Amino acid sequence: MHKVKAAIVGASGYSGEELVALLARHPHVEIAALTSRQSAGKTVAEFFPRMAGAAIAGMKFIEPSTESLVASGASVVFLALPHGLAAEFAAPLRKAGIQVVDLSADFRLKSADVFEEFYGEKHPAPELLVGSVYALPEVCGNDALKDAGLLACPGCYPTSILVPLVPLLRKKLIDPNSIVINSLSGVSGAGRKADVSLLFAECNESLRAYGAPKHRHLSEIEQELFAAAGEKVVVSFTPHLVPVTRGMISTIVVSPLKGADVHAVQSAWGEAYQGRPFVRMVSHLPDSKHVTSTNFIDLAVREDKRTGRLLLFSAIDNLGKGAASQAVQAFNISRGWDEATGLA
Amino acid sequence: MHKVKAAIVGASGYSGEELVALLARHPHVEIAALTSRQSAGKTVAEFFPRMAGAAIAGMKFIEPSTESLVASGASVVFLALPHGLAAEFAAPLRKAGIQVVDLSADFRLKSADVFEEFYGEKHPAPELLVGSVYALPEVCGNDALKDAGLLACPGCYPTSILVPLVPLLRKKLIDPNSIVINSLSGVSGAGRKADVSLLFAECNESLRAYGAPKHRHLSEIEQELFAAAGEKVVVSFTPHLVPVTRGMISTIVVSPLKGADVHAVQSAWGEAYQGRPFVRMVSHLPDSKHVTSTNFIDLAVREDKRTGRLLLFSAIDNLGKGAASQAVQAFNISRGWDEATGLA
Amino acid sequence: MHKVKAAIVGASGYSGEELVALLARHPHVEIAALTSRQSAGKTVAEFFPRMAGAAIAGMKFIEPSTESLVASGASVVFLALPHGLAAEFAAPLRKAGIQVVDLSADFRLKSADVFEEFYGEKHPAPELLVGSVYALPEVCGNDALKDAGLLACPGCYPTSILVPLVPLLRKKLIDPNSIVINSLSGVSGAGRKADVSLLFAECNESLRAYGAPKHRHLSEIEQELFAAAGEKVVVSFTPHLVPVTRGMISTIVVSPLKGADVHAVQSAWGEAYQGRPFVRMVSHLPDSKHVTSTNFIDLAVREDKRTGRLLLFSAIDNLGKGAASQAVQAFNISRGWDEATGLA
Amino acid sequence: MHKVKAAIVGASGYSGEELVALLARHPHVEIAALTSRQSAGKTVAEFFPRMAGAAIAGMKFIEPSTESLVASGASVVFLALPHGLAAEFAAPLRKAGIQVVDLSADFRLKSADVFEEFYGEKHPAPELLVGSVYALPEVCGNDALKDAGLLACPGCYPTSILVPLVPLLRKKLIDPNSIVINSLSGVSGAGRKADVSLLFAECNESLRAYGAPKHRHLSEIEQELFAAAGEKVVVSFTPHLVPVTRGMISTIVVSPLKGADVHAVQSAWGEAYQGRPFVRMVSHLPDSKHVTSTNFIDLAVREDKRTGRLLLFSAIDNLGKGAASQAVQAFNISRGWDEATGLA
Repeated sequence: MHKVKAAIVGASGYSGEELVALLARHPHVEIAALTSRQSAGKTVAEFFPRMAGAAIAGMKFIEPSTESLVASGASVVFLALPHGLAAEFAAPLRKAGIQVVDLSADFRLKSADVFEEFYGEKHPAPELLVGSVYALPEVCGNDALKDAGLLACPGCYPTSILVPLVPLLRKKLIDPNSIVINSLSGVSGAGRKADVSLLFAECNESLRAYGAPKHRHLSEIEQELFAAAGEKVVVSFTPHLVPVTRGMISTIVVSPLKGADVHAVQSAWGEAYQGRPFVRMVSHLPDSKHVTSTNFIDLAVREDKRTGRLLLFSAIDNLGKGAASQAVQAFNISRGWDEATGLA
Repeated sequence: MHKVKAAIVGASGYSGEELVALLARHPHVEIAALTSRQSAGKTVAEFFPRMAGAAIAGMKFIEPSTESLVASGASVVFLALPHGLAAEFAAPLRKAGIQVVDLSADFRLKSADVFEEFYGEKHPAPELLVGSVYALPEVCGNDALKDAGLLACPGCYPTSILVPLVPLLRKKLIDPNSIVINSLSGVSGAGRKADVSLLFAECNESLRAYGAPKHRHLSEIEQELFAAAGEKVVVSFTPHLVPVTRGMISTIVVSPLKGADVHAVQSAWGEAYQGRPFVRMVSHLPDSKHVTSTNFIDLAVREDKRTGRLLLFSAIDNLGKGAASQAVQAFNISRGWDEATGLA
Repeated sequence: MHKVKAAIVGASGYSGEELVALLARHPHVEIAALTSRQSAGKTVAEFFPRMAGAAIAGMKFIEPSTESLVASGASVVFLALPHGLAAEFAAPLRKAGIQVVDLSADFRLKSADVFEEFYGEKHPAPELLVGSVYALPEVCGNDALKDAGLLACPGCYPTSILVPLVPLLRKKLIDPNSIVINSLSGVSGAGRKADVSLLFAECNESLRAYGAPKHRHLSEIEQELFAAAGEKVVVSFTPHLVPVTRGMISTIVVSPLKGADVHAVQSAWGEAYQGRPFVRMVSHLPDSKHVTSTNFIDLAVREDKRTGRLLLFSAIDNLGKGAASQAVQAFNISRGWDEATGLA
Repeated sequence: MHKVKAAIVGASGYSGEELVALLARHPHVEIAALTSRQSAGKTVAEFFPRMAGAAIAGMKFIEPSTESLVASGASVVFLALPHGLAAEFAAPLRKAGIQVVDLSADFRLKSADVFEEFYGEKHPAPELLVGSVYALPEVCGNDALKDAGLLACPGCYPTSILVPLVPLLRKKLIDPNSIVINSLSGVSGAGRKADVSLLFAECNESLRAYGAPKHRHLSEIEQELFAAAGEKVVVSFTPHLVPVTRGMISTIVVSPLKGADVHAVQSAWGEAYQGRPFVRMVSHLPDSKHVTSTNFIDLAVREDKRTGRLLLFSAIDNLGKGAASQAVQAFNISRGWDEATGLA
């Protein structure tokens, strides 16, 4: 098969690094360009010593610019940039007919107003919102991704939350007003940025909630829950920062409708995710260490007979299924390839 | 002041070790005996190298027995034993007129039936239940502890949960049926026991819920919430094991009654805990690292205007306020001393 | 290509788990049997939730016995067992004409006396020692491994130490009497065993030397250094336990001979390891996190002009190049395949 | 006793924070001023939530200036500043007759030339070097500290290295040319600074040597070893960064002179450190977790009969005996108080 040329913008962050590693061994992809403002001029192996010895080790990071990306011949550009910045690249790249797989928050929301409410700034390219796909394959389905020009890849928290909840809301098995979510995230989720609060000596032996009660990811979580439920859904969501490098778990408490029990939940999941290779229903309570460096999401459910509530559990790798490998999965589908290509 | 002779049974576990360190520097206490089945014959410094150089370094652990404890002249015995085992010592010690400060679960529940339901065995000394005090000072109050013969010290999860919730239930500020609790615990909470699931290589880079939906601590949590609310309270409670040695945080989502808001919660806390040196209301979200090796509990509250729910946050050291230092605090009060004696 | 049937004995330990994962995706291997005393009857996915979804997920662990291994049709058996136990399987398996790849210490030493000196017991199968190959491919060379019936795979410490030192001793660039080695090991190196000293709460925030001055691995280190130097070599070796799950680094201080400098070292390494895909000479000081979950060994050298000594640095994954992936590498060579097969 | 007024400059770093905590509970000290450029205007509790509830919680950090320090009435100023900056404060403060306890490197070296060689800049106040005391109490002795005006507190690496080595060199028990040192440091040793290489996600699961072969601390290590040996001493010293927040161990390999053995080493240590409360000779190999948050240094020795070398081991808390608590110890002695005052 002719290989697809791909470029990665913002390749020196944690998600960018994962993308480089994944695409470098993807059987249908050839990396055409890697950009990084801070590492321009360095080789991949210099900035990522882990990749010394790989075929791509000698490739140099270049300064990011639309011109150089177009010149690279890439037919797809992955954007691993902070929100706001991604749109600056996405707009001209789309105009140039290049597919964009965006890992930022810029094109996840259908409403520019909601973006402004949660991100505190005007949306930088609202005209692109209508054409973007919220690229959570198990939720949006393969048809929505096929040949999509702009893939808005979900955040890590939304991925860990939507996969367990969406089938239950679609089947009206749970009360949309009853949802209470607690999530735990590894520190890499905050990015490779020089910030005192992310130092080892600040995070080690530290457990802390943050971003409550209105974390930015709430906007996309509720948008998608609304779509699934067919009615407005407002949830309680509390993220926590805990001392692991990679890993995320979510614990979700909900009230069932119509006597939905463990079996009903498992049936709904089984039906919704039949044939989906990356969703695993497990009998134990999910542990993040079982999914690190993979694209899996592990799901489990328990019934609390005392309260009448259901407990839903999920585990992902925040940089894997929560970011880079999920982006590759969605990209695979957009190209008509098996979704697991390059991810096994 | 004449010093009180104290003995510690089960001194070689994590809570026991904390008790040894605290009582060794307590101005009104003299350690009369330390027992440990596994370390009998060893000195304190041999088993706890951290304590080399302390005055108590050369004291030897002895085999635990009621006779040797009585013979030691101790007027108080701290029991840092697994549940079930503690009662075997408590009964004869109480008969001998010795005060017992028990860190196990054996005397926390008022009902032997509830004990059997949650612990899966008959209560070993039900006749002592009526006379025991659930020794959470900020909740039971000093009068209940004064001259108490049997102090049943709370577990770490209950401490982190009851302190924020009890004043709100007493004042009917929150709906007792709305309570959803997520707690994160450090690994020392599981004790110093040879268990593969507690190995470094199993816990590091691992995040996992466990014990849901019916963790044993639920029994004492709900007993005390019932007492506060004046009505049956059933809560959702999910504990999680996370890779810190010490530390515990709880995140509690509740629905307010009568429009109770952040201010109402803070007022209720302020009133309930006025003059209590170990309760700190903080403006940031509590971080376990701010309370490790202390007897503090940090509390915060947020209002989620979108859901109408309140978010309560607490942080403690599971071995401190969640175990050993709280036991000393309660013991201080039982003796009529300042509750912070030896804990500053 | 016809697939080779392989069995793994002791599959439920950390090295065993790595072997299962590696061989399950090895293009020329079919797993014929997995044995585990403690997990017999369980499926791979039940004991290793990480492997749920893999083709091998449903295979059941069986009780270990020579009969069942022979019956499995395996033409190679990997032994991931404690020393002493491995020999009990190796002897009958070799008699049955089955290739044995042993990850234990049982066949690493050429001398049964040295084994007894370091392991404190008689060697269980001394007649096999003469035919075993010390399977460190970069040191023993491919010819020694070709069609070998008994591969004695090196320990993690020896791997991290021999790869940097052997070429320098062979070329007489360093004084064999000057070697001082300090190594740091992750906790998984101690195995998946219920031992209080390996608990998270004992290893986290802990740094400690151990096993000095006569760690068991010294025996194989010195055997191989002797072979390289052509004279007796006695080294100072201090292992340390540090709180990482996986990873090992060694820092080696040596006195150069004949004015050997950084360039001479790099030339010797370059020459010795030309064409070896898993040895990486790096310009920075090696960091274990760059090699975790790989078969790479990173090497660097510095000259200390003040003391006239050379500093050698290496980093490996103790479970990868230090155990499982190196075993697969050696096995590949023994079968005449590319050494990186299944390891890329 | 009349309390001594003390100020702390650079109070918001890790060593500064320790100093604040120690001096706040020191029985003979009253904190007169705390300075911090970045936190000026904030209260202690706002910047250090751990200290909420302490008597000092409401004190505000002020901008650092000689004038404000003099105005505070402090008779001693602790400087917890980066090298170079400390001298800017020390010179005018000394002129104003105020005692200076400096935790930086500025006054540790007797030679301004050596300072320039190792720190790459002219010494900022060479005229003060002659009057400063290298304030390692167990090495310099109490007389040198008595009434000292400028205490140059040692770095963490030097402390962990000099305490075991100095008595042996003084007694000519070891060959000064044979010393090979490997040290492991927790991440807090690098300070509370926004640096990508110190992020949790960079340090966790990472083991790395750094700063070899000429770390800055070598200069003071060798100055003091020279003084002890009475001859030039050049050592091999390799520091390593490992994922603990606090803790440091050093492993030192030396060749004995005149048949010095374990007993000779222990005798030399015993004699040199008799009556010194913070030096503990232990029979096990020192573990950093036994000394965290203390001023202890644990020492052990082993003989390697095979190489004829001796192995020396030490463990300290890099922020305790390696920085803040040692500064308080030296300050205590300078004032004629028991050295353990406020440190027990």
